[in-house]
Amino acid sequence: MCRWMGWLGQSVLIDELLFKTQHGIVDQSLHSRMGAETTNGDGFGMGWYGAGDGPGVYHSVAPAWGDANLREIAGHIESPLFLAHVRAAIGSPVQQTNCHPFRHDNWLFMHNGYINDFHVLRRDLMLAIDPDRFAEVQGSTDTEVVFHLALTLGLESDPIGALERTIGLIEATAGEHDVGAPVQGTFGISDGTSLWAVRYATEGPARTLFASAEVDTVKRLHPENPRLQQLSEGDRLIVSEPFADLPGVWLEIPEATAVTVCRGGTMEERPFVPRLHPHATVTQHDRSAVST
Amino acid sequence: MCRWMGWLGQSVLIDELLFKTQHGIVDQSLHSRMGAETTNGDGFGMGWYGAGDGPGVYHSVAPAWGDANLREIAGHIESPLFLAHVRAAIGSPVQQTNCHPFRHDNWLFMHNGYINDFHVLRRDLMLAIDPDRFAEVQGSTDTEVVFHLALTLGLESDPIGALERTIGLIEATAGEHDVGAPVQGTFGISDGTSLWAVRYATEGPARTLFASAEVDTVKRLHPENPRLQQLSEGDRLIVSEPFADLPGVWLEIPEATAVTVCRGGTMEERPFVPRLHPHATVTQHDRSAVST
Amino acid sequence: MCRWMGWLGQSVLIDELLFKTQHGIVDQSLHSRMGAETTNGDGFGMGWYGAGDGPGVYHSVAPAWGDANLREIAGHIESPLFLAHVRAAIGSPVQQTNCHPFRHDNWLFMHNGYINDFHVLRRDLMLAIDPDRFAEVQGSTDTEVVFHLALTLGLESDPIGALERTIGLIEATAGEHDVGAPVQGTFGISDGTSLWAVRYATEGPARTLFASAEVDTVKRLHPENPRLQQLSEGDRLIVSEPFADLPGVWLEIPEATAVTVCRGGTMEERPFVPRLHPHATVTQHDRSAVST
Amino acid sequence: MCRWMGWLGQSVLIDELLFKTQHGIVDQSLHSRMGAETTNGDGFGMGWYGAGDGPGVYHSVAPAWGDANLREIAGHIESPLFLAHVRAAIGSPVQQTNCHPFRHDNWLFMHNGYINDFHVLRRDLMLAIDPDRFAEVQGSTDTEVVFHLALTLGLESDPIGALERTIGLIEATAGEHDVGAPVQGTFGISDGTSLWAVRYATEGPARTLFASAEVDTVKRLHPENPRLQQLSEGDRLIVSEPFADLPGVWLEIPEATAVTVCRGGTMEERPFVPRLHPHATVTQHDRSAVST
Repeated sequence: MCRWMGWLGQSVLIDELLFKTQHGIVDQSLHSRMGAETTNGDGFGMGWYGAGDGPGVYHSVAPAWGDANLREIAGHIESPLFLAHVRAAIGSPVQQTNCHPFRHDNWLFMHNGYINDFHVLRRDLMLAIDPDRFAEVQGSTDTEVVFHLALTLGLESDPIGALERTIGLIEATAGEHDVGAPVQGTFGISDGTSLWAVRYATEGPARTLFASAEVDTVKRLHPENPRLQQLSEGDRLIVSEPFADLPGVWLEIPEATAVTVCRGGTMEERPFVPRLHPHATVTQHDRSAVST
Repeated sequence: MCRWMGWLGQSVLIDELLFKTQHGIVDQSLHSRMGAETTNGDGFGMGWYGAGDGPGVYHSVAPAWGDANLREIAGHIESPLFLAHVRAAIGSPVQQTNCHPFRHDNWLFMHNGYINDFHVLRRDLMLAIDPDRFAEVQGSTDTEVVFHLALTLGLESDPIGALERTIGLIEATAGEHDVGAPVQGTFGISDGTSLWAVRYATEGPARTLFASAEVDTVKRLHPENPRLQQLSEGDRLIVSEPFADLPGVWLEIPEATAVTVCRGGTMEERPFVPRLHPHATVTQHDRSAVST
Repeated sequence: MCRWMGWLGQSVLIDELLFKTQHGIVDQSLHSRMGAETTNGDGFGMGWYGAGDGPGVYHSVAPAWGDANLREIAGHIESPLFLAHVRAAIGSPVQQTNCHPFRHDNWLFMHNGYINDFHVLRRDLMLAIDPDRFAEVQGSTDTEVVFHLALTLGLESDPIGALERTIGLIEATAGEHDVGAPVQGTFGISDGTSLWAVRYATEGPARTLFASAEVDTVKRLHPENPRLQQLSEGDRLIVSEPFADLPGVWLEIPEATAVTVCRGGTMEERPFVPRLHPHATVTQHDRSAVST
Repeated sequence: MCRWMGWLGQSVLIDELLFKTQHGIVDQSLHSRMGAETTNGDGFGMGWYGAGDGPGVYHSVAPAWGDANLREIAGHIESPLFLAHVRAAIGSPVQQTNCHPFRHDNWLFMHNGYINDFHVLRRDLMLAIDPDRFAEVQGSTDTEVVFHLALTLGLESDPIGALERTIGLIEATAGEHDVGAPVQGTFGISDGTSLWAVRYATEGPARTLFASAEVDTVKRLHPENPRLQQLSEGDRLIVSEPFADLPGVWLEIPEATAVTVCRGGTMEERPFVPRLHPHATVTQHDRSAVST
């Protein structure tokens, strides 16, 4: 059920992290070790900041392991901040509009996990999206709806807070429909400057999530590893599962936790607590299509 | 902006009509003469009745003229009733879930044309879909929403009446949003037994639509044409534009008209008059996701 | 490295065997148990005999498990004789022209395994193809070259003999290039009437291959199994790996063995012995295309 | 039958030239004015020099006008030297390995036109490729074979001379097979530093080819055009057909002519004269792969 990674640090050729690591995200598309499924072959997505306006996105329905264009693009684009995602579809079609990360202006959003019984909740959740934003939903994933809800509830000014309100709203909606354990997963978010990541499940355990340790620590622990020695102060990775079995390199992010990684590599953790905005309601937006 | 065809008659290999006519639907994908666009290269769709439960559908994002699988399937499936559609996308993505015909149980539905300013109307129209059916909308086209509205408003018991109510609802919704000339196009519908077709535009002229003449007439007019001589009594074609320039073979369906073709080839015309169901309303379905 | 199946028997909806078995070929695309790789996600192919001239083929670059069109086609085509193949690419691109089965006139041909160091042998092997047939090679797989060699060496009059000569030629060519263990795999062949299958490796063990037992035996062994009770006398399956763990249902085909299944279900085994046609020769090694 | 463009000049976002011109290459994919076909919808290809080792290539089977990834990549990659190509297939399959430009090390190669009766000549031409290079041919186009012949005949040290020898070889081979008018088209070549273009047909007229005029001239002629005023000294475009109807901006390259554009924008023309290397020979016609 998906794997993802986020990089914030020095500008690197993307394939350094996608293809040239021992167990990077492309390898995880075929041989995931910690995911709910071994195979994540239902499409690939990448979003990166660099040349041009806002982030670029590449969405492919081919499995990452065999996508020639992905190899080309990753080998010829440098970026100091990018997200990548391999998908294992759960019901929704394999199409580009269902590939993560999703984008709005400068923002990228991706997810590993699911909204339980999404087909039961889909209408109510879409109703809770800002009506002016409704027509922007292009695909049929739960994640895209979560993203637009979060945008509706203030993502652009307070990403973690907005996601707490979004998850709160989803859990409340699920409650009304007797849907149990509605939220499962991890989320990755960026605005081109910072990187946010959340690990949360209504009923645990949540999907795994790891951050790379301080660069100084990593280099000191593994002086013999040339790849790690190329890291610069401030480089930071967030990943669904570690790229290699290197002691001390990967820090597991606890459940119900949000992390914020800022340029320079500082990382802050805080508890992630879903909450229902006191005035959140769908019906305020309910413009009647037809009144008789 | 799309071309389509429907066949009801003797069982034929599908490629007889797709590939082996002078100006069939595949040729129209590259060289449409009467369409709003010459090229209809944004995907292909086909639905057919035959072996297996209900209609089969084939949806492809490749242009019809170059799709090797289409050529294979059409050359190896026989059907007495099938629909085919070439798409020219207007904004919405080229993906299989946006290819016509759309299916629900035994029903197939396709469309040539558009709902004007659909992004403005999309939310209200989706709200008017039966909530239990809402999660079935998989793509992002206007046509799929029209189909689910028509299902909501009784398509399965009265196809033309339900489409009149649907178009009435869309026109009323458009009026509330100051969207002019909301509905343009032709629609093709089947349940596996009959074939319905509608030509209508809020503001004309509507897209073209033709039916083949009585088989007896066709054969008498063109005794030298071996293809036409193979027709059997009761064979009937409905097409966006004629397959060949043969006098007397194609009857233009007037604007604001619905036709019903039954097995045996009888075809009835009636006026198509959009109407607003007196009790149609969105808000009756509006289940609040969140009430505080 | 691929899995395949062949059916010869009563006319059935293809999805009965592709999707409705416990561990059918589509399941094997994601969860192969006996293959060299768990995942066979690099395309799907199917060839079937039924309506229309010669066999139809469907070749898809999407993984079989998520291909909506495959599900549709399989659910709406009946055939008394069809082949299906899931691919795990080894180097060559994932494209329709590299999907099995390959077709020539009435013949279908597919393969699980590989020609070792094919890039070294490719030129000499293609040179050995009948020059009039050379331009028909459309893809870049080893299998398609094997097929055209076999056609050159008499496949249409003596399938097993021609394949023995083909493998002999490949092994001789490999010997000249110091390529070891050149041939590995199983082959499936049909002309629309019979089904041939070969299990062979220059150096074993060869990939697995199984045939279903006599229908009478199968039904007697598993009286409680409704699916097996639907089998008719003469139904026969050849598969890379069994569809279910049912004692007595599956017979392993020995190494270096060819089987011939005829309509009516009779199956004959014979040793498979590669041989070099006494006068066969690769026009060695005219390496100098341009000699100066 | 294809359209292409090449840019050598200041580093620009690729979409400036692909999407933001009046009649750029993407517009030509749907509305070519001077091509043999209006529609060039059988795939897109792009090769660019910039970050990473050697040129990157992007090959897509989707029509350029509707390819969301192309729009993304073009909008987020800067390059001082790139080639782009829209394809109208003539027989060979629409697959990524048939998309131009083709690449070898630092070299990119593309073509608009055809080798007449290529299926008749394919074997002899492939035989003339350096045997060590034979296995690199991945697709089934005439162009890829021309490219590998040119590499065999010295492209990397003398691009135009090698192409003259290649065309000479093709014409000689065609003569042996009684194939008339064998070569038609234009060719674009780059090594990452310079840009070469050739216009040639055995029997004219050859496909059109244009170069942009000196930047000084262009700016003086169109002082009111803000886009043209952004050009820098040394910018140069080579195109199958002009991007706009601007007098004095586009210079038609004569038939049977090769141009070399160097960094700094200098452009030299010379006659293009196919010639047969005195000792070049196709190892005729060892048609007997297997002689009995």
